[in-house]
Amino acid sequence: MTRSELIDQIKSKRSFLCVGLDTDFEKIPRHLLNHADPVFEFNRQIIEATADLCVAYKPNIAFYECRGIAGWQSLQRTCEALPKDCLSIADAKRGDIGNTAKMYAKAFFDQEMSGLRFDALTVAPYMGHDSIQPFLDVEGKWSIVLALTSNAGGVDFQMHEDADGVRLFERVVGKTNRWGTVDNLMYVVGATRGEAFTAIRALAPDHFLLVPGVGAQGGSLQDVCRYGMNADCGLLVNATRSIIYASDDEYFAERAREEALVLQGEMEKELAAKGII
Amino acid sequence: MTRSELIDQIKSKRSFLCVGLDTDFEKIPRHLLNHADPVFEFNRQIIEATADLCVAYKPNIAFYECRGIAGWQSLQRTCEALPKDCLSIADAKRGDIGNTAKMYAKAFFDQEMSGLRFDALTVAPYMGHDSIQPFLDVEGKWSIVLALTSNAGGVDFQMHEDADGVRLFERVVGKTNRWGTVDNLMYVVGATRGEAFTAIRALAPDHFLLVPGVGAQGGSLQDVCRYGMNADCGLLVNATRSIIYASDDEYFAERAREEALVLQGEMEKELAAKGII
Repeated sequence: MTRSELIDQIKSKRSFLCVGLDTDFEKIPRHLLNHADPVFEFNRQIIEATADLCVAYKPNIAFYECRGIAGWQSLQRTCEALPKDCLSIADAKRGDIGNTAKMYAKAFFDQEMSGLRFDALTVAPYMGHDSIQPFLDVEGKWSIVLALTSNAGGVDFQMHEDADGVRLFERVVGKTNRWGTVDNLMYVVGATRGEAFTAIRALAPDHFLLVPGVGAQGGSLQDVCRYGMNADCGLLVNATRSIIYASDDEYFAERAREEALVLQGEMEKELAAKGII
Repeated sequence: MTRSELIDQIKSKRSFLCVGLDTDFEKIPRHLLNHADPVFEFNRQIIEATADLCVAYKPNIAFYECRGIAGWQSLQRTCEALPKDCLSIADAKRGDIGNTAKMYAKAFFDQEMSGLRFDALTVAPYMGHDSIQPFLDVEGKWSIVLALTSNAGGVDFQMHEDADGVRLFERVVGKTNRWGTVDNLMYVVGATRGEAFTAIRALAPDHFLLVPGVGAQGGSLQDVCRYGMNADCGLLVNATRSIIYASDDEYFAERAREEALVLQGEMEKELAAKGII
C-alpha cells in the first residue's frame, strides 16, 4: 500500500486506527476452543467486526511465535485474511546484520518464501544502517523504525542525551530518515510521550508515525493529535487490548466493534478539526 | 547449562568455539536436497562433525523464519539435535515491551509451548529494562544482550558518546549488568572492535562475552583474547561462514571439522597461555 493509498483510506474511513492483533491463546473466549485454529478464528471475527473502522492491522509476532509451528499457522492464516484496503504491519521489531536482515525481509515480505506478505515491518535501530537498509530496499514495503517506545523502559536509553543535548531517539530519527523516504519509512512513537511528538515532528514533519500506547497503556489520543498530526494526518494510532479483549464472552467481536467505533468517532473529530476531511 | 558447567566444558574440550548455524537453503550442498528436510540434514551433519570441538551452537533465527513453517520445522529438529554438553543459543535479537517479551521467552525457552528449548537468547537493549527482565526471570536460562556488534552499522548509534563521554554500548553494559548476574547474563561484543573489549571488561569483568566477527568478518582471535579473556575464559567466540560453508560439496562436514579444528587449536593455545588449562 502506497502513502497516497493510505491517506485515501484514512479520509474515506474517517479513521487512522490500527488494531493490534496480539492474540493470546489464554485470553480468547473459551467457546472458540472447539475451532481447529482458535487464534485464527478469534482474529477472523475481530477483523470482520472492525475492518470498516480501521486502516491497519498489526499482529505482534511474539504472540504467534510462542506457539511454535501452530502459531505460525495461525499467523499465516491471519495474514491471508487481512483486508487489502488495510495496511498490514508485522510487529516484529527485528534488527540484525545485513545478510541476516535480508532473511528477515523475506520472512515477512516474501510470500513465496515464507507464506507471509505483510506491507510493513517494525524494526529496531540499535545495530545501525546495514540492519535497516535491507528492509527499505524491498520495493513497495514499509519499514517502521522504533524511535520512542511507550513502555517504562523506553526512558532507559532512548531518552538519554548526548554531548549536544540530542536524545538517542532524536538521533535515531535524524539519522534513519536519510536512509529512507516518507514513502517507505515510518517511526514508532509511544502515545505516552506527548511532548516528544514535537521533537519528532521537527525532524520528520512528513513521515507517518505508528503510535502505540493509547488505551490500556494510558496515552491520550487528543495529545497525540495535538502534537503529532500533520496535514496528511501522518498518524496510525494503535489500540490492542482495549479492543480485542473488550469482553471474553461470545459477544467479544461486537464489543470490539463498539470500542473501535468510539475511537473512530474521536479520530473523525480530530481529522475534521484539522480540515483533513 | 550453568556458568560452572560451561567453564568445565571449555576446559575439557580446550575450546571456547561457538558454531553459528545460519543455514541458508541456497548455500547448502545440492546433494542434500533429496532429504526430506535438507536444512536439518545439513545441520545434523555439521553438528556431528564439530560437537567435540565446540562448546556452543548458535542458529540465527532469521535463516529459519524466512522459510515460514518449513523453517520452524527445521529449527525445531535442529534444537532437538543439539548436544546437551553444548550451550544452545537462539540468535534472535528480540526486544519488546514486558508482556510481549514474556511471549518471546516462551517461544525460545518453553519447549511445551513452542517446541524449542534453547539455553540462551540474544536480546536487543533499545527498549530498556522491561524488555530484558522477562528473559532474565526465566530460571536456568541465559540472556545475551547486544552491546557492540560487529557490523559496519554498529558505529551508528552504539559508539555515540553522551555528555560524560560514555558511549552507548558502555551505558548499555553498565546499566543492564545491574539487572542480571554473571550467571544469567552475557553480552554480544563484535570481534572487529578489539580495543572496545577493554572498555567492556572495565564494566563487566566476569561476564561471558559472545563474540561474532572472527573469520568471514575479519576479526582477530588473538586480539579478542588479549583484550577480552578473563580468568574463567569468559569468551564464546562464534564462527559461522568459515566453518559451515568451508565447502559446498559432499565433503562439507569434513571440511567444516577441519576449519573448526584450526580454531580449536588456536583457542587451546590461548587457554594454555592464560593458564586456564
